[in-house]
Amino acid sequence: MSFDAAGPISHLDAPSVIRTKRDGGALSDEAIDWVIDAYTRGEVAEAQMSALLMAIFLRGMTGHEIARWTAAMIASGERLDFSDLRRDGKPLALVDKHSTGGVGDKITIPLVPVVMACGGAVPQAAGRGLGHTGGTLDKLESIPGFTAEITKSQIRQQLCDLGAAIFAAGELAPADRKIYALRDVTATTESLPLIASSVMSKKIAEGTKALVLDSKVGSGAFLDSEAESRELARTMVELGVEHGVQTRALLTDMQTPLGRTVGNAVEVVESLEVLAGGGPDDVVELTLALAREMCDVAGLDGVDPAQTLRDGTAMDRFRDLVAAQGGDVDSLDAAMLPLGQHTETISAPRSGTMGDIDAMAVGLAVWRLGAGRSVPGEQVQFGAGMRIHRKPGEAVAAGEPLFTLYTETPHRLAAAASELDGAWSVGDHAPPTRPLIIDRISM
Amino acid sequence: MSFDAAGPISHLDAPSVIRTKRDGGALSDEAIDWVIDAYTRGEVAEAQMSALLMAIFLRGMTGHEIARWTAAMIASGERLDFSDLRRDGKPLALVDKHSTGGVGDKITIPLVPVVMACGGAVPQAAGRGLGHTGGTLDKLESIPGFTAEITKSQIRQQLCDLGAAIFAAGELAPADRKIYALRDVTATTESLPLIASSVMSKKIAEGTKALVLDSKVGSGAFLDSEAESRELARTMVELGVEHGVQTRALLTDMQTPLGRTVGNAVEVVESLEVLAGGGPDDVVELTLALAREMCDVAGLDGVDPAQTLRDGTAMDRFRDLVAAQGGDVDSLDAAMLPLGQHTETISAPRSGTMGDIDAMAVGLAVWRLGAGRSVPGEQVQFGAGMRIHRKPGEAVAAGEPLFTLYTETPHRLAAAASELDGAWSVGDHAPPTRPLIIDRISM
Repeated sequence: MSFDAAGPISHLDAPSVIRTKRDGGALSDEAIDWVIDAYTRGEVAEAQMSALLMAIFLRGMTGHEIARWTAAMIASGERLDFSDLRRDGKPLALVDKHSTGGVGDKITIPLVPVVMACGGAVPQAAGRGLGHTGGTLDKLESIPGFTAEITKSQIRQQLCDLGAAIFAAGELAPADRKIYALRDVTATTESLPLIASSVMSKKIAEGTKALVLDSKVGSGAFLDSEAESRELARTMVELGVEHGVQTRALLTDMQTPLGRTVGNAVEVVESLEVLAGGGPDDVVELTLALAREMCDVAGLDGVDPAQTLRDGTAMDRFRDLVAAQGGDVDSLDAAMLPLGQHTETISAPRSGTMGDIDAMAVGLAVWRLGAGRSVPGEQVQFGAGMRIHRKPGEAVAAGEPLFTLYTETPHRLAAAASELDGAWSVGDHAPPTRPLIIDRISM
Repeated sequence: MSFDAAGPISHLDAPSVIRTKRDGGALSDEAIDWVIDAYTRGEVAEAQMSALLMAIFLRGMTGHEIARWTAAMIASGERLDFSDLRRDGKPLALVDKHSTGGVGDKITIPLVPVVMACGGAVPQAAGRGLGHTGGTLDKLESIPGFTAEITKSQIRQQLCDLGAAIFAAGELAPADRKIYALRDVTATTESLPLIASSVMSKKIAEGTKALVLDSKVGSGAFLDSEAESRELARTMVELGVEHGVQTRALLTDMQTPLGRTVGNAVEVVESLEVLAGGGPDDVVELTLALAREMCDVAGLDGVDPAQTLRDGTAMDRFRDLVAAQGGDVDSLDAAMLPLGQHTETISAPRSGTMGDIDAMAVGLAVWRLGAGRSVPGEQVQFGAGMRIHRKPGEAVAAGEPLFTLYTETPHRLAAAASELDGAWSVGDHAPPTRPLIIDRISM
């Protein structure tokens, strides 16, 4: 009862909107537009939005509600438009990728240069990590000097000249930024409608024309089941297409971490190995699968992403990109990147075969080492991270190192190591293998 | 993910507590104690508590959780104790009454003096109205000079000398006061566990030894069904008994307003009619039924509540109580109490028999006239209210007045009148009658 006593009952007061969703109803277009706008302007209180988010978490949203909620978040800020840009007289092949968040997921770092080398133009609004998954910006900022705080004219220039710009989402979809921070502290993160609308509002506003999504499945993913991750992917593909962004998704495994490194600078180091033609098989496989989808959806015919890793053109494009955004290219020599000077090694208790390694536990361990944040805005440790010396199915000799933990603050080592308790094993047999790429979803 | 990165995972951070309830789990005693205390101290944010309240609203609470939540709210402030007080060398017969909130429910005003006249001592922590139901304090404060802001020593003195004190809940259960205000703006009011814990934390903290609850059923009640109102009554009775307060409940009808007046001063006027031996049958019936329960549960044998209305002793006690709390006894002459000078009359469109009158619609109409609040702390109009000239089943002549609306602000009349559209009818037959007192619940 907090409507205006003097007028007719307004259906656009916060308690009425909350009550509708609480009781399992669908929110009207008018109610969604109003509540997103009023919350962005501070007229709807944090406490009211969080009650609504919990009601959405528990009651769900129809496809129509998700679409309108996404549109309202886009409309809360500017939608970038690069369709006027030309290279050699032709429109740019604007294409981007987004992952729903994984552990050891450094794929953006080798992927963007591969797509640049294939002729694409990637306008990537990237995020910082929060919770157990790392953010691309946190990883790239471990390169001394690198900045994602670049102007709109610099983004346009880089897209034309280099074929990519990686920038902080900043003013895009400000409603989403406010809601995202609130979800994190109110346990309303792992909700399909809220994840789909959050991702797609930023990706649609960033000005790409095509988009490939990497929707994660497994313990390290935000949603629990493959069915939910599949539904999330389908929902996001539909949202993109409705807004004129050609969107596809891959459903990929996140039961175990990607690659052999998890953290900030360590993941850049591993990405450089991939760009140099080496690196872990799973990272290379996923990078190339996503690159092929991106080139295909962007209409880049007759290109060979794998060739760009072999012939060094992807590495060249990465160095160009880092240099354009202020990064110290000389530091890309692995030895120059910061690694935490305090380490702990976990060794094999017996000989045998490495079993499964739980992605969520590894994500939490690395977060405890200082690679992630407890509250938005906190400074991360670029040198915090972990090396995984033996991946599932690999032979292990008793006493050899399995995991090395890095941090700048030694008191963090014990809590991080304890996160790994029970999260891995050495046994007599290799664990069952799972395909890395589970399915492909398009409209 | 907002636990402390450097230590072991604390189960007592707000997101973890919210997540447990969100996922349908039961909160541990430790979690409940922590979250109530931390919220009262401002360490848990409003947005976090409101997400938790919505999760409780939608997931419910076990009996054990409700009991612990209530105990934690009591422990957030002082629990009054009057067990040392004596009158004529004997402990006081401490007994109180609480209604879950109704429309036209002025029962406390005649009831307290009746119980005083029967030898009881009523320590009543009373509330102000919010939403469509009026608050006893708002009604009593329409008597010029009357105040409920009295000291603890005055409460003790009045209990001994007069047999009653009506005081603002103030510092009792401060956690409840904060949560109650939050529930109102986040659409989390109508929840059984939250209603039960809110009512009982205040009633247990106020220091009564016995309690009779009036749990409302019908359109004007906060819960939808009789089954829920019954379950609420049973839950509150158990909570009281667990805390050493002898508690019983009556389940009573709130489909139609009580009596012939709804508002602030108008309800005091009607209460004075009852105290003078007259007044509407339903108000008299409910007053006496509750008085008999209160005398019985307080161990007051051989008393006759009805006699106190007939012989004027209840009226005398009321005047004593008003005088003790600063009220102008001379103004109790009906003509002296403020009635809004702007009025509107709704007349009968035809002759016939008055049908049902919807309690919720009347409550909202009177709230729009200015008798209630849109936000906590707002000043109410003492003169706002409504007279109901014909009750369900009474004969009606075409053109005669059915409802008179009173307000101090004429622009409110139209919105209030429109709340009544469709909420009453005049027909050929009397509507089915319902018993006013539906059931009696004790342990």
